[in-house]
Amino acid sequence: MEVKDRVRLGIIGIGNMGSEHCRLILGGKCPEIRLAAVADLRPERREWARETLPEDTKIYADGRELIGGGDCDAVLIAVPHYQHEALAVAALEAGLHVLCEKPAAVQASRADRMIRAAEKAGKTLTFMFNQRTNCVYRAMKELLESGRMGALKRMNWIVTDWYRTQRYYDSGSWRATWAGEGGGVLLNQCPHQLDLLIWLCGMPNAVTARCMEGKWHHIEVEDDVSALLEFPGGATGVFAASTGDLPGTNRLEIDCEKGKLVCEDGQVRVWRMDVNEREICFSSDDPWYRGEAETYLLENDGENPQHAGVINAFAAHLLRGEPLIAEAKDGLRELELSNAIHLSGWTGKRLEIPVSREAFDRELEKRIAGSRKRDVVDVTYVTDHS
Amino acid sequence: MEVKDRVRLGIIGIGNMGSEHCRLILGGKCPEIRLAAVADLRPERREWARETLPEDTKIYADGRELIGGGDCDAVLIAVPHYQHEALAVAALEAGLHVLCEKPAAVQASRADRMIRAAEKAGKTLTFMFNQRTNCVYRAMKELLESGRMGALKRMNWIVTDWYRTQRYYDSGSWRATWAGEGGGVLLNQCPHQLDLLIWLCGMPNAVTARCMEGKWHHIEVEDDVSALLEFPGGATGVFAASTGDLPGTNRLEIDCEKGKLVCEDGQVRVWRMDVNEREICFSSDDPWYRGEAETYLLENDGENPQHAGVINAFAAHLLRGEPLIAEAKDGLRELELSNAIHLSGWTGKRLEIPVSREAFDRELEKRIAGSRKRDVVDVTYVTDHS
Repeated sequence: MEVKDRVRLGIIGIGNMGSEHCRLILGGKCPEIRLAAVADLRPERREWARETLPEDTKIYADGRELIGGGDCDAVLIAVPHYQHEALAVAALEAGLHVLCEKPAAVQASRADRMIRAAEKAGKTLTFMFNQRTNCVYRAMKELLESGRMGALKRMNWIVTDWYRTQRYYDSGSWRATWAGEGGGVLLNQCPHQLDLLIWLCGMPNAVTARCMEGKWHHIEVEDDVSALLEFPGGATGVFAASTGDLPGTNRLEIDCEKGKLVCEDGQVRVWRMDVNEREICFSSDDPWYRGEAETYLLENDGENPQHAGVINAFAAHLLRGEPLIAEAKDGLRELELSNAIHLSGWTGKRLEIPVSREAFDRELEKRIAGSRKRDVVDVTYVTDHS
Repeated sequence: MEVKDRVRLGIIGIGNMGSEHCRLILGGKCPEIRLAAVADLRPERREWARETLPEDTKIYADGRELIGGGDCDAVLIAVPHYQHEALAVAALEAGLHVLCEKPAAVQASRADRMIRAAEKAGKTLTFMFNQRTNCVYRAMKELLESGRMGALKRMNWIVTDWYRTQRYYDSGSWRATWAGEGGGVLLNQCPHQLDLLIWLCGMPNAVTARCMEGKWHHIEVEDDVSALLEFPGGATGVFAASTGDLPGTNRLEIDCEKGKLVCEDGQVRVWRMDVNEREICFSSDDPWYRGEAETYLLENDGENPQHAGVINAFAAHLLRGEPLIAEAKDGLRELELSNAIHLSGWTGKRLEIPVSREAFDRELEKRIAGSRKRDVVDVTYVTDHS
């Protein structure tokens, strides 16, 4: 591998997320990363970079200039979703490794091209699924993978704690438009939950969804989603998300053959039986069998490195071949699920996953054609770090 | 009104539920009721009645004989669902008042006829929605009706604590068959929750459902249901029910403009804001407004009279015109929602509520035509009192 003791990283897009990544690196949270360059189309963001970043950090106006500048081993892409593909492909083709913000893209068809570019270039492509580093979800993953809970039977995730006021949507002319962002709560807020859902429960193979567009806000895209999921093993699921509930809920219940897990308020309660319900059902003489379940709070290691964890794993992967937090295909699968929920909502049909790339792209194109830019002033916040 | 100081009640069907009602009355829980007569087709149940009930209780083999016997002012019908209509109509036409077990019937079209018969006869028809007497649900109803929470925005009810083993279904040849029972978890276990859902949140006007038949048990009918609901005011809902989860969950979340209620483990937690989210959304300068919600456990009066409460309200209504626990139309609406979930599951379509009576009846008839009686011995339990 061409990379030596530190990875020279270029950050393309230093708005809300990109500037936070700069701070993490400069704050010493990513010792195997050197911030080599940044790029942003907006003069005021470059001005911020000149005032804030070390003198030896190269500052570019255009991401493609940064990619061609020869200062970096890898890039972190933190620009609006629609630009992910072009920049990632350009970087990969230039021999750079890529860590890209979520979602991978807007259309799975674009994520396909990113993955193909990475394969062709023999470079690493990964995505910012920082919630996978959360000790709570890691503990759930470990328990589910241990086999101690048996197979999945049902899941129900209410994730309505993404409350946003109209002011949030009015902070960017591209926000919550089909042409500028390509989706709403599914694409902006929920990629983490959709990725975790797949990571913890496996990939659903069918979806029946209702997506409400502009239900709670004056926006084009969906701000309220309810989806019925089906999994290959026969399990079912419910996923409900909104940016209009106050106070919202974030409660994930996962029911398995040997008990259940409920994650809420930052902790996971487990109900676990030594017996398997699938055996009990056909062997018990008791019509109303209840049995006994051991119940306890799931312990975890307390570590929650979030974005720094993803960036550090990326560096360790490039330097020493250590595992990434998420593979390139995980970014694609998250988008396949997200696209399927959108398309099911648009068509009003139960759809098998993955849905037709062509059908999704066609439906999205219709919406882009009718989309209009928001007549507002773009604002960069320093606190939007999802 | 022809009824004097006590209502002379006949109970038709003294199996699981009917015998329990006898015990309540004989145990002094229903002071304004006199158990005048019982009827059951099964000799062993009549034998039980002869051994157990006071000597002056008339014992009939056939419900129609009881209705024509002249011993009663009212009947309580506790026979399999398909027989509700014929017996209720016969009783009403004979000038008797009717309290009928839930569900009102299998088909809403049958409940229509029951209601028409009651109207024609000028007699009272009501249904055993005993869960409405539960102090927990009453307190929720009172809070929601007070206007202090604002309008409904979303609800999510996971009611998977109806666990049943195969033995349960094997206890009756009619159980969990299309011909004998007409449905599964929707029709047998969930009428209470569907009624409470309507009572607390209002009647949904559309449903998109997945009903899994024989998913967890060797039965014809559904034992696993997930439904997306839509309400006239724009609110959305999720309803998930199963008899195959162990340990199950019973968690009802109701989100409103000024906060939310979560009912679980026999208590209700309230999050309440003085502000209305619908105003905050468009007036706040904070993109990520969180605000403050007062949170507390909802107090209640601790009274939970269940079946006795319904029977006593029925008596008080007949004797003094006091309010019933549920109106006849409430039994119909519960069935309209249940039928809609079934039909949406069968057709795979989003349906507006109420669904076509003809379409539901036709689809059910197809399933009845292919139904087969379960080759098991019928058992009367003394503990199945839902």
